[in-house]
Amino acid sequence: MIEELKPEERLDDLHRKGYKIIQNEAMFCFGMDAVLLAGFCNIKTTDVVLDLGTGNGIIPLLLEGRFGPKQITGLEIQEANVDMAKRSILMNQLDEKIKIIHGDIKEAENLLPLSNYDVVTCNPPYMDVGKGITNEHSAKTIARHEVLCTLEDVIAQASRLTKVGGRFYLVHRPHRLIDIITLLRIYKMEPKRLKMVHPKVGSEANMVLIESVRGGNPFLKVEKPLIVYTSEGIYTDEIYSIYGY
Amino acid sequence: MIEELKPEERLDDLHRKGYKIIQNEAMFCFGMDAVLLAGFCNIKTTDVVLDLGTGNGIIPLLLEGRFGPKQITGLEIQEANVDMAKRSILMNQLDEKIKIIHGDIKEAENLLPLSNYDVVTCNPPYMDVGKGITNEHSAKTIARHEVLCTLEDVIAQASRLTKVGGRFYLVHRPHRLIDIITLLRIYKMEPKRLKMVHPKVGSEANMVLIESVRGGNPFLKVEKPLIVYTSEGIYTDEIYSIYGY
Repeated sequence: MIEELKPEERLDDLHRKGYKIIQNEAMFCFGMDAVLLAGFCNIKTTDVVLDLGTGNGIIPLLLEGRFGPKQITGLEIQEANVDMAKRSILMNQLDEKIKIIHGDIKEAENLLPLSNYDVVTCNPPYMDVGKGITNEHSAKTIARHEVLCTLEDVIAQASRLTKVGGRFYLVHRPHRLIDIITLLRIYKMEPKRLKMVHPKVGSEANMVLIESVRGGNPFLKVEKPLIVYTSEGIYTDEIYSIYGY
Repeated sequence: MIEELKPEERLDDLHRKGYKIIQNEAMFCFGMDAVLLAGFCNIKTTDVVLDLGTGNGIIPLLLEGRFGPKQITGLEIQEANVDMAKRSILMNQLDEKIKIIHGDIKEAENLLPLSNYDVVTCNPPYMDVGKGITNEHSAKTIARHEVLCTLEDVIAQASRLTKVGGRFYLVHRPHRLIDIITLLRIYKMEPKRLKMVHPKVGSEANMVLIESVRGGNPFLKVEKPLIVYTSEGIYTDEIYSIYGY
């Protein structure tokens, strides 16, 4: 397998069904947010799943490893990421199960069947344009900043592609939560489960996980918070379990 | 003092500056939500404060005991509660500091000066009308169910009465959080601090505390969660500290 890697790429183990993923630090490496999002999902083996902005395909691979849904599509705008994702999928012999499509989230409704997916997932760029470092349209900048798509693009497209009664899973930063909730309501995606992620007991949340249901009735469950590190700075048992160690 | 109590009333200690409060189990007894709301507030000695739906005056008394703001007004619709609140305030010699007004939250904008308050607080009825037990318009039903005012009434009035840049503190149930946030945005009250209250480590949240700023910029802080009970079922140190023990 190693000979399939290009210069500067590396191969990481996903601790699920022996799956491996190609990563490239200059382009895209998955973070804890992708792993926590996959761990937060509830997915059935009959579900048809779409991942918006799939990067190197981390979320499709994790969801296949964890839940084995019927079919997963990943949409990704950056060609080099599409190439990495496709090679990882082939390497794991998942090319019948996971399809990667090269395209823009803003155009998703024109590229993919409407109201089709039981589950849509997204780990979008977190940063408003003009905030944080956006001095170049590098691969990493596109993955992290809203240069190519806004939060509203993501939520609008997710709504159009999710079946009525289907679920949308989003990971984001708490400081944007009010924008997120307001937009979800506007696009008829009702938040039903919310989970705060805190780096340590006694810290502010630094991530938020949200499950919304298209056309769902208002009734939110705020789950027990997820704590990442113990007071000694090592991962909590819950984090180890989500990572599959 | 005891001789001032009416039948079925009792006197409770607030553990702040020796203040006492008259309670009546048939009418209104304060709960943990009022104490946690008072503990969540940030109030300066120069602040002018309004408490919407003040019941027996518990929140004004706790805020005076904790922060000593310049002036506090409590608005309450139920005459028997107004009477209890006024007698408690007299008993604590706070009648110069705390004023209780008999009136309806829905009419607050006609009873009180607009855009006047540095801080507005509210521990509103939690239950939608028609949900839970609403078989009578008893004193307790009015305090707990939205029979006389809705969540939108509360937020609309809070917005009209709070100064631009002033703060609105609300305690409510997590299952209504999406409605709350949507309404706060509509009425230009931007949520800035959110705190989830969980009965135990590992439990879903059963209360939520929200600080909003009238005309504030979007940027939410999700604070460390507040845990009420230890695994042994006794209050956590944080709860004891908020109660002032």
